[in-house]
Amino acid sequence: MIPRYSRPDMVAIWSPETKFRIWYEIEAYACDAQAELGVIPRANAEAVWRAKDVTFDVARIDEIEAVTKHDVIAFLTHLAEHIGSDDARFVHQGMTSSDVLDTTLNIQLVRASDLLIAGMDRVLAALKTRAHEHKDTVRIGRSHGIHAEPTTMGLTFARFYAEMNRNLSRLKAAREEIRTGAISGAVGTFANIDPRVEEYVCEKLDLIPETISTQVIPRDRHAMFFATLGVIASSIENIAIEIRHMQRTEVLEAEEFFSPGQKGSSAMPHKRNPVLTENLTGLARLVRMSVVPALENVALWHERDISHSSVERAIGPDTTITLDFALHRLAGVVEKLVIYPENMLRNMNQFKGLVMSQRVLLALTQAGVSREDSYRLVQRNAMKVWEKGADFKTELLADAEVTAALTPAEIEEKFDLGYHTKHVDTIFKRVFG
Amino acid sequence: MIPRYSRPDMVAIWSPETKFRIWYEIEAYACDAQAELGVIPRANAEAVWRAKDVTFDVARIDEIEAVTKHDVIAFLTHLAEHIGSDDARFVHQGMTSSDVLDTTLNIQLVRASDLLIAGMDRVLAALKTRAHEHKDTVRIGRSHGIHAEPTTMGLTFARFYAEMNRNLSRLKAAREEIRTGAISGAVGTFANIDPRVEEYVCEKLDLIPETISTQVIPRDRHAMFFATLGVIASSIENIAIEIRHMQRTEVLEAEEFFSPGQKGSSAMPHKRNPVLTENLTGLARLVRMSVVPALENVALWHERDISHSSVERAIGPDTTITLDFALHRLAGVVEKLVIYPENMLRNMNQFKGLVMSQRVLLALTQAGVSREDSYRLVQRNAMKVWEKGADFKTELLADAEVTAALTPAEIEEKFDLGYHTKHVDTIFKRVFG
Amino acid sequence: MIPRYSRPDMVAIWSPETKFRIWYEIEAYACDAQAELGVIPRANAEAVWRAKDVTFDVARIDEIEAVTKHDVIAFLTHLAEHIGSDDARFVHQGMTSSDVLDTTLNIQLVRASDLLIAGMDRVLAALKTRAHEHKDTVRIGRSHGIHAEPTTMGLTFARFYAEMNRNLSRLKAAREEIRTGAISGAVGTFANIDPRVEEYVCEKLDLIPETISTQVIPRDRHAMFFATLGVIASSIENIAIEIRHMQRTEVLEAEEFFSPGQKGSSAMPHKRNPVLTENLTGLARLVRMSVVPALENVALWHERDISHSSVERAIGPDTTITLDFALHRLAGVVEKLVIYPENMLRNMNQFKGLVMSQRVLLALTQAGVSREDSYRLVQRNAMKVWEKGADFKTELLADAEVTAALTPAEIEEKFDLGYHTKHVDTIFKRVFG
Amino acid sequence: MIPRYSRPDMVAIWSPETKFRIWYEIEAYACDAQAELGVIPRANAEAVWRAKDVTFDVARIDEIEAVTKHDVIAFLTHLAEHIGSDDARFVHQGMTSSDVLDTTLNIQLVRASDLLIAGMDRVLAALKTRAHEHKDTVRIGRSHGIHAEPTTMGLTFARFYAEMNRNLSRLKAAREEIRTGAISGAVGTFANIDPRVEEYVCEKLDLIPETISTQVIPRDRHAMFFATLGVIASSIENIAIEIRHMQRTEVLEAEEFFSPGQKGSSAMPHKRNPVLTENLTGLARLVRMSVVPALENVALWHERDISHSSVERAIGPDTTITLDFALHRLAGVVEKLVIYPENMLRNMNQFKGLVMSQRVLLALTQAGVSREDSYRLVQRNAMKVWEKGADFKTELLADAEVTAALTPAEIEEKFDLGYHTKHVDTIFKRVFG
Repeated sequence: MIPRYSRPDMVAIWSPETKFRIWYEIEAYACDAQAELGVIPRANAEAVWRAKDVTFDVARIDEIEAVTKHDVIAFLTHLAEHIGSDDARFVHQGMTSSDVLDTTLNIQLVRASDLLIAGMDRVLAALKTRAHEHKDTVRIGRSHGIHAEPTTMGLTFARFYAEMNRNLSRLKAAREEIRTGAISGAVGTFANIDPRVEEYVCEKLDLIPETISTQVIPRDRHAMFFATLGVIASSIENIAIEIRHMQRTEVLEAEEFFSPGQKGSSAMPHKRNPVLTENLTGLARLVRMSVVPALENVALWHERDISHSSVERAIGPDTTITLDFALHRLAGVVEKLVIYPENMLRNMNQFKGLVMSQRVLLALTQAGVSREDSYRLVQRNAMKVWEKGADFKTELLADAEVTAALTPAEIEEKFDLGYHTKHVDTIFKRVFG
Repeated sequence: MIPRYSRPDMVAIWSPETKFRIWYEIEAYACDAQAELGVIPRANAEAVWRAKDVTFDVARIDEIEAVTKHDVIAFLTHLAEHIGSDDARFVHQGMTSSDVLDTTLNIQLVRASDLLIAGMDRVLAALKTRAHEHKDTVRIGRSHGIHAEPTTMGLTFARFYAEMNRNLSRLKAAREEIRTGAISGAVGTFANIDPRVEEYVCEKLDLIPETISTQVIPRDRHAMFFATLGVIASSIENIAIEIRHMQRTEVLEAEEFFSPGQKGSSAMPHKRNPVLTENLTGLARLVRMSVVPALENVALWHERDISHSSVERAIGPDTTITLDFALHRLAGVVEKLVIYPENMLRNMNQFKGLVMSQRVLLALTQAGVSREDSYRLVQRNAMKVWEKGADFKTELLADAEVTAALTPAEIEEKFDLGYHTKHVDTIFKRVFG
Repeated sequence: MIPRYSRPDMVAIWSPETKFRIWYEIEAYACDAQAELGVIPRANAEAVWRAKDVTFDVARIDEIEAVTKHDVIAFLTHLAEHIGSDDARFVHQGMTSSDVLDTTLNIQLVRASDLLIAGMDRVLAALKTRAHEHKDTVRIGRSHGIHAEPTTMGLTFARFYAEMNRNLSRLKAAREEIRTGAISGAVGTFANIDPRVEEYVCEKLDLIPETISTQVIPRDRHAMFFATLGVIASSIENIAIEIRHMQRTEVLEAEEFFSPGQKGSSAMPHKRNPVLTENLTGLARLVRMSVVPALENVALWHERDISHSSVERAIGPDTTITLDFALHRLAGVVEKLVIYPENMLRNMNQFKGLVMSQRVLLALTQAGVSREDSYRLVQRNAMKVWEKGADFKTELLADAEVTAALTPAEIEEKFDLGYHTKHVDTIFKRVFG
Repeated sequence: MIPRYSRPDMVAIWSPETKFRIWYEIEAYACDAQAELGVIPRANAEAVWRAKDVTFDVARIDEIEAVTKHDVIAFLTHLAEHIGSDDARFVHQGMTSSDVLDTTLNIQLVRASDLLIAGMDRVLAALKTRAHEHKDTVRIGRSHGIHAEPTTMGLTFARFYAEMNRNLSRLKAAREEIRTGAISGAVGTFANIDPRVEEYVCEKLDLIPETISTQVIPRDRHAMFFATLGVIASSIENIAIEIRHMQRTEVLEAEEFFSPGQKGSSAMPHKRNPVLTENLTGLARLVRMSVVPALENVALWHERDISHSSVERAIGPDTTITLDFALHRLAGVVEKLVIYPENMLRNMNQFKGLVMSQRVLLALTQAGVSREDSYRLVQRNAMKVWEKGADFKTELLADAEVTAALTPAEIEEKFDLGYHTKHVDTIFKRVFG
């Protein structure tokens, strides 16, 4: 976790305080259920709630763990210091450490998902606003980095919206993947604890009881979760790369907002660099790097080995914190992005009229010229623009073979920008409903 | 694609013949739609279907491509050789190559998904059968590779079933992710082609029109698709590792079926190696390796660059073919796995009674001994078994501090195996309904 | 292996014919050594060389393998068909299959390395030529995609040369990593075969005897090999991305060579797309994807498991073939790259003089203005250029605070391009010696 | 960085205090060189050393950065607070932030390498000691997890030693890869700073001047560095997996040292789990996950973009800290590993004599039986051991076809363990010299 790429809300989910609080709730609810089933005395279950308002002492627990070398035992020992060792005797009964640890991890991931969903909502809102704002702002579409045909800035935002909307659905599905709890004992047989305890605790904590667990909750769930975050990160990179391209000196169709006090470079004071989107490109790599170890974590030995644990201690917080930060940074960039419609027009007209070549090609074939010949005619005039800076329309009007097939008015009509934007509303309806 | 790790059905999906057939259908349906809209003459659209029964000549198309250096143009030129260049004039009108290529790729991935789903169904059926067959076959559960408490072989199969069932759901979701088509022109604006053409072609080919495309279908869809295959591969590895462990000489609780003619080793004729599951472990790595490049493919420049193409030419076929093969190999292994219940019992009793330690621990605490003391009592007797090969129950019965808390009958009862399997039916109901 | 991204020389290394030929040589040399040691009769060893000019029948070997399910036994059976089963009796004696398989794989990787080194040499030669050709071709340097200060096109090529030269060293080191052979028997103890056989065979095949093997050659060697290829691929991507940027419509400082018959787009005949470098970007991803499975292959169980085998059947050929193709494609691109020095000048002057801001900043501080004040003065004038298209030098000359510190001549001097290129020769000497 | 997986020495390398100290030294040495060249007054250069004993105030620098949004400017501003803004005026002259940042990163990586090398030395020493200690401790070798032929525990340690020794060489090479510095200005042309400043600073800091830099040091160096760490991590996993296998309940040939106060399980007091090596398996995944983003960092745009920075802020410390911790944990595990030679013998004799099958096979062929027949004879007797628990030697002595070829004494001799260990000294000489 790198402080400069972190937001406090997400960091708090992964604090020891939060973790111990969740452990406590699991143990306390489990005692309630055990009392209800008559396994332990109701008075002892009730006694556990005495610690309801306690903020657990992380340093003290660490101290105990230094001796026991076992974190859950350390916590239980500390808990007994609060509620009395006699009443604490029934806490954790029939449970195994992983019942607590795995259920807690999933609760943390669910909470993290909720924050990520909120971040995604902010990104979507920003994209939607900017899409409508620039629905009709004409801009050259590019394939291979080369001018192709006109499109609009609104369509660019709209496609990022659609992509992020898919990511929102994936995120919600990922949240469901890990919204399970397990209290099933040492190897998942419920030998020492009734399945109803699991059901009760899960219900209280808004989880689904894991269909079948071993000592642990199966890690294919977590693999799917982190794989999904990796996809989302790649979409963030996708938007970031688009903005970085737009801010290139030669293109300059948009710029990240540049605040008054900010210095672009220690050496070159004129510079305004797309540092936020470059940073997002790097953050995307960081989020993505959790995917492979999460996949490698699936094949645990028999009913469990603990190799996944150190991986999750790192990628659990690091990946969700980084993605959370990235979503909000992205939202901020989109919300405040400075857009230059006049530069978009300037760029589009760089090769006068050339971007209309396909329309002319089509018109020629529709006027009865063979596809091969049409292609040849268009390309021959296009090359004059490309190589000598000629005006495409002028060249076409002067080409006898072209004018044999198309009237000047017909040629003229092919250069109408409205032709390219006529379905924008249709597409917006598809995207925004 | 490695022939020995391939099944013909999946290979066929990726053949040039299949690809050209799909290209043809897209072009032909698009012509129908264009004719319906009055954009091209109906007679020309109908003429395209003259090639309905043609098997396209791959070598001829390659020959043309060698000149044009453009695959779609090569195909269209060849198509014109079949239906006449006059009638072929309107084919592909208003479309861009990617309209054909991307829609085709998605159709191939959908078909591949259907085969993968069939493979998964076979795996699930095998796991279900073996689970019920060994529902009550007692086996020691292991955490950290160390004996823990008893479980059953049926539960092992059942948890793999549940995991693969989740994967089936994920696979179906992944299929939906890439079940889209796009015919939206050079930069996705429908400038040269009506959106109704896309709708018509997609309907005919059982696809959803892409919400918003650029020149290409957005690659976050494919990233999610391959990420999902990566998760499935990891689950295959999970099962493979379990079987490899069971077949270890010292464990020998199960063996891959060993066919009569098979030779285990050129040097050691007595050997029976778990080569199929070891192979599955390797195949899992191969499937997984597509995830990162698929994620890297998302951030294409502007309306598209073509960097994704070479990646998909490799991972499209290779990953689906490998996973398809792996699923059927896994199904075969599970179907024919030779299981040795007697060895399971032998292993479980290796440390006489020690695996029952937790029950004794619980009984002591319930009898009023403090948790700390109970732990000490159990561990002191457990260590005698571990270090001197003593019998756990005998030691407990001879320990005055233990018998002060528990009667001999109570101690005896703790060694009943039925205690551990009492919830197997409950779990099976959760898994299999 | 995708034919369109393959060169025949590299493909041949991975053909079954080559593989069987190497197997044969290992077996034949091993027989020689065994005869020399008196372990087998010399006549039998000599008899093996009767097959010296045989091209082994791949189909026949496959046929035998279908029965034996063991490739080396199938080969030995087929070999006996050539030299007589009586004489063949001593072939492979004391050896295990992996002695043959692993030594063969390493020989193939060494040969592949030699081709890769040749490809790298071609890339280096091209880069060196173009570097010297454009040593003094001034071009704007860019950080963050934003104009920074002038550099030269020659320096760009020179830095790619230096990077690729490092990669050449790494490639040679990687070649040494896998230039080992092992003939040490079932678990690497030489129980059934004298270490001198290994030494003899390795010497004949230009290999180093593996320091210590188990049944297999340790896979950390292969991991290092593929990791190195992954780094090289990333450098290829680095160059490819630079060229793609230079070919952007708005930048157009260079273009991939566009052959006469080539069609850029089925729709837009004017387009010239950087398809080769985009392809290289994708190929880089394909090469890189072998790194993770190669790393996962290291931790084989005990003296070996066979999980690595399927991985290597894929990544062995695929990765070396793809990288070999990519190196030659890259060399071709660099050799024929069309460079537009006039466009480089045009771009550099887009914001008149602004790229000289740092020089002015330095001059001000050297003239006694505080760093903070200098920064403020430069930025205030820079912003006028940026926002209103003013000329930087003119603005500076009109700024009283600036002219209070610098004379007009001093200001004028800061706009001399030679200032920026004065150390080019020094750098070239560092790079090219 | 996870505290429980960190050692203070490595953490200190990545502290802000260390970073600012290195920044300071670079700036101060650069001033010395500039003064020597006559670019700045010697008095000002000397003034910079006034801060020689200052521990920079991290909080204060952060405070300034919150305003300037630029870390190097913030540091320089703070430095001026120590040495006076007048004397500070010449600090950083002609330099760009990356000159400081990149040179610093490489210094940190070099120092990290030194610690890693020390950790590796400790691992090597432990492996060497244990190898010699158990040079002749016979143990069954296993391929595919199945008993193969005898080997010794010493050979297992020796091969890990050889592997780690290769890793030591790789580590030293990786250290050289990143032992460079660059002070070359905004785009690497030395326009504003003489190359001799770079040479001087590098010499003082024990670095090599980067052959050719842009604004940054080329990232192929760092990619190679992290790729190498990934290989080392995989070797750690390799050793960890071996130990985990040895500690399995059914195998129990070795155990991690179990300290008196340690609790294996909250539920099962008898358990001794290989938690350290399981943890190492997970840590290996964490180290490895840095490889892909490091490779993705290579292709920066033009003279640099800043996408690599966030990646390196994470993987720089996290990867080196984790690997450092893992090396020492591994060394500790090896040093204290409890080995059970008697269990090794017990396991080897599990299938009486079967592991000698290859020797018998060879003897039969040498006695004139055809390879095919020999194989059949051995396999037929081997199967009786496998399936009915017979004694292999007894069966062979009772098989008329076998005794027709081999005398009882010859058969007897095949079961001599010394046969398998006769080359151990030779191998040890290869490994340890």
